[in-house]
Amino acid sequence: MLSISERGKKMPASPIRKLVPYAEAAKKKGIKVFHLNIGQPDIETPPAILDAVRKADIKVLEYSHSAGNESYRRKLVQYYKKVGINVNHEQIIITTGGSEAIMFGFFTCLNEGDEVIIPEPFYANYNGFAIAAGVNVVPITSSIDTGFALPPIEDFEKVITAKTKAIIICNPNNPTGYLYSRDEMEKLKQICLKYNLYLFSDEAYREFCYDGEYISALHLDGLDENVVLMDTISKRYSACGARLGALVTKNKSVYDAAMKFAQARLSPPGLAQIMGEAAIDLPDNYFDIPKAEYMARRDLLVSRLNAMPGVFCPNPGGAFYAMAKLPIDDSDKFCQWLLEDFSYNNQTVMLAPATGFYGTPGLGKNEVRLAYVLNLDAINAAMDCLEKALEVYPGRVGLVPEKKAMMK
Amino acid sequence: MLSISERGKKMPASPIRKLVPYAEAAKKKGIKVFHLNIGQPDIETPPAILDAVRKADIKVLEYSHSAGNESYRRKLVQYYKKVGINVNHEQIIITTGGSEAIMFGFFTCLNEGDEVIIPEPFYANYNGFAIAAGVNVVPITSSIDTGFALPPIEDFEKVITAKTKAIIICNPNNPTGYLYSRDEMEKLKQICLKYNLYLFSDEAYREFCYDGEYISALHLDGLDENVVLMDTISKRYSACGARLGALVTKNKSVYDAAMKFAQARLSPPGLAQIMGEAAIDLPDNYFDIPKAEYMARRDLLVSRLNAMPGVFCPNPGGAFYAMAKLPIDDSDKFCQWLLEDFSYNNQTVMLAPATGFYGTPGLGKNEVRLAYVLNLDAINAAMDCLEKALEVYPGRVGLVPEKKAMMK
Repeated sequence: MLSISERGKKMPASPIRKLVPYAEAAKKKGIKVFHLNIGQPDIETPPAILDAVRKADIKVLEYSHSAGNESYRRKLVQYYKKVGINVNHEQIIITTGGSEAIMFGFFTCLNEGDEVIIPEPFYANYNGFAIAAGVNVVPITSSIDTGFALPPIEDFEKVITAKTKAIIICNPNNPTGYLYSRDEMEKLKQICLKYNLYLFSDEAYREFCYDGEYISALHLDGLDENVVLMDTISKRYSACGARLGALVTKNKSVYDAAMKFAQARLSPPGLAQIMGEAAIDLPDNYFDIPKAEYMARRDLLVSRLNAMPGVFCPNPGGAFYAMAKLPIDDSDKFCQWLLEDFSYNNQTVMLAPATGFYGTPGLGKNEVRLAYVLNLDAINAAMDCLEKALEVYPGRVGLVPEKKAMMK
Repeated sequence: MLSISERGKKMPASPIRKLVPYAEAAKKKGIKVFHLNIGQPDIETPPAILDAVRKADIKVLEYSHSAGNESYRRKLVQYYKKVGINVNHEQIIITTGGSEAIMFGFFTCLNEGDEVIIPEPFYANYNGFAIAAGVNVVPITSSIDTGFALPPIEDFEKVITAKTKAIIICNPNNPTGYLYSRDEMEKLKQICLKYNLYLFSDEAYREFCYDGEYISALHLDGLDENVVLMDTISKRYSACGARLGALVTKNKSVYDAAMKFAQARLSPPGLAQIMGEAAIDLPDNYFDIPKAEYMARRDLLVSRLNAMPGVFCPNPGGAFYAMAKLPIDDSDKFCQWLLEDFSYNNQTVMLAPATGFYGTPGLGKNEVRLAYVLNLDAINAAMDCLEKALEVYPGRVGLVPEKKAMMK
């Protein structure tokens, strides 16, 4: 009989996208849905980088070099220099989004059956690429109570086996917004050196650090051979649909092997590379406005959340996500209920249940991720919805004392 | 110690791209190199489809649906209808080039250790995707003496094991240009039904059939569950750099599982989808001119080749490739020699050694692939070079009798 592969069966459906049919149904009923569920920013893609495509004189849209156009890689060298990363154009492979950089890293460095340690909650799609590559994800838990700080080194050491080949971090973090400190990055370095582990560093959100300093894995002295940096322009320039990323590594064996995977798929997208190249010429202060906007949104979102009874949201240091602990029984049920059974002023809010971001079953049931990718008015309206929803949600649990007192 | 994965080690370097440094060196010496080595057509990308991107009103270049924009998938349904393929938009996943469609097919349908049968010579990158997926390629040999017709069914049956899960064909074929007949397609159908095999059908070149009828795997009655069609706009609209393809299947389990891989990488390229959608509105006679051009090139190339002593080139029925048997000791050496040690009128030609297209070691040593992606004048000049080269190549073997007579 024809059958699907084992990895095809094991592959998880996107935990975020599985709620989409409920959102569509709500919209069909005439309800406005505030999408805080997905990291698709509303920030305008810089018109100059789209104009570069419009003005490009293209007769034949040809394959590029498998590593990406040399001209683009050379310009990226300048970009990385500005953020304190010294690499040359032969240490960069242009990829189809950050996704492909993650995939190349997994396939190049990890064997089937190997283990990667990831502090959870983590970007859910690491799971998908791990399953595609036959790699086992070993989560170690970071807690909302510490704002999702790096778990102690002992937690890493407890799970390291002969099969452990890499640690993955996302910094600033999706889904937590946590920004790793220099001290935490140094700890990661020590453990990678001690156990000969790759450090896969997903730095998609580096431009959006609000409190504290951005430390790249490639800022760490003496770790060059271990680091595989995974990058993308999706969030940086609000160009998710371009599908343009990069794998950056100073490890020549990794680079050369990753290039063979890159050659097999021929080349990254051509028009997107024109955008990426033009983006390097944006004025240095380009990020000031989106960064200030995200920061204002964060401040509003976090203060609105923490003002709700029974809700706790640690202040995220970067990216454009916040995790909140809610007084609910089950975040999957709650997020579906918000779309299916709830509205306030004919509006509701779509959130991402945190369960999809944990590798350990059962965790995240009272947490949700909120992406602050809408403007301040929309965030306020969405928070109004959430506040009202928590008051009437049938699965509400753990009322705070004063609230309980009021209800007596 | 940090090490590369086993698949990273096994992954072949592109057999075509490994000669690139020699071509670059030749160019540095001032020698003009005719590139018949790679399927990068010189045909202009239809200006209308690039204009569609230029005119698109984009504020935020967002992720598309993971299956691709619904509007594009709906238009593709019309396109497929015109070529006799009846599918709906929920049987199409838009991919990043045909490459990703191949990868999704492998990962979705095949387990590690499974076997796929591919008539050789075959598109070299199938190897790469097979290694990434841990799948074993089992080649069965088609011969230049029959023009690379489908090997007899007995040859398939001889290699079928419990691990065999799929047959891959490329029709019209890269690298041979062979166009499978209805009778051959029916034979493939019978064998897939008898042994419950998937038929992965790479139809990247369907618009370029010169002699005989194009038969899609999805034209075959009763094979719908078995067929995974892999498609791309790269060759159809001379838009290789767009990186836009499609996986098409009526098998719902395959579709649903492939969608999970599609979700993990979020979405296919956005600007390319605008191009793809605009391409459906090109006039019906759009293909007349490129097709006539390719046909004229084929006729010239094949007649020039067969006029050379000791050379045999079967007439390819489709695509824009021809395979030629040359009187040489080793096609890898010869192709390198053409770039390193030979020129005629300060020109030379770059060809693809056929060894890279065979799975069976040792085959293809006296064959090369020629992509007729240059205009008639360039093909003539390239053939002048090849003719002269064969006269002086030190590794020439098997002189034809009259030539031997002349040299006595």
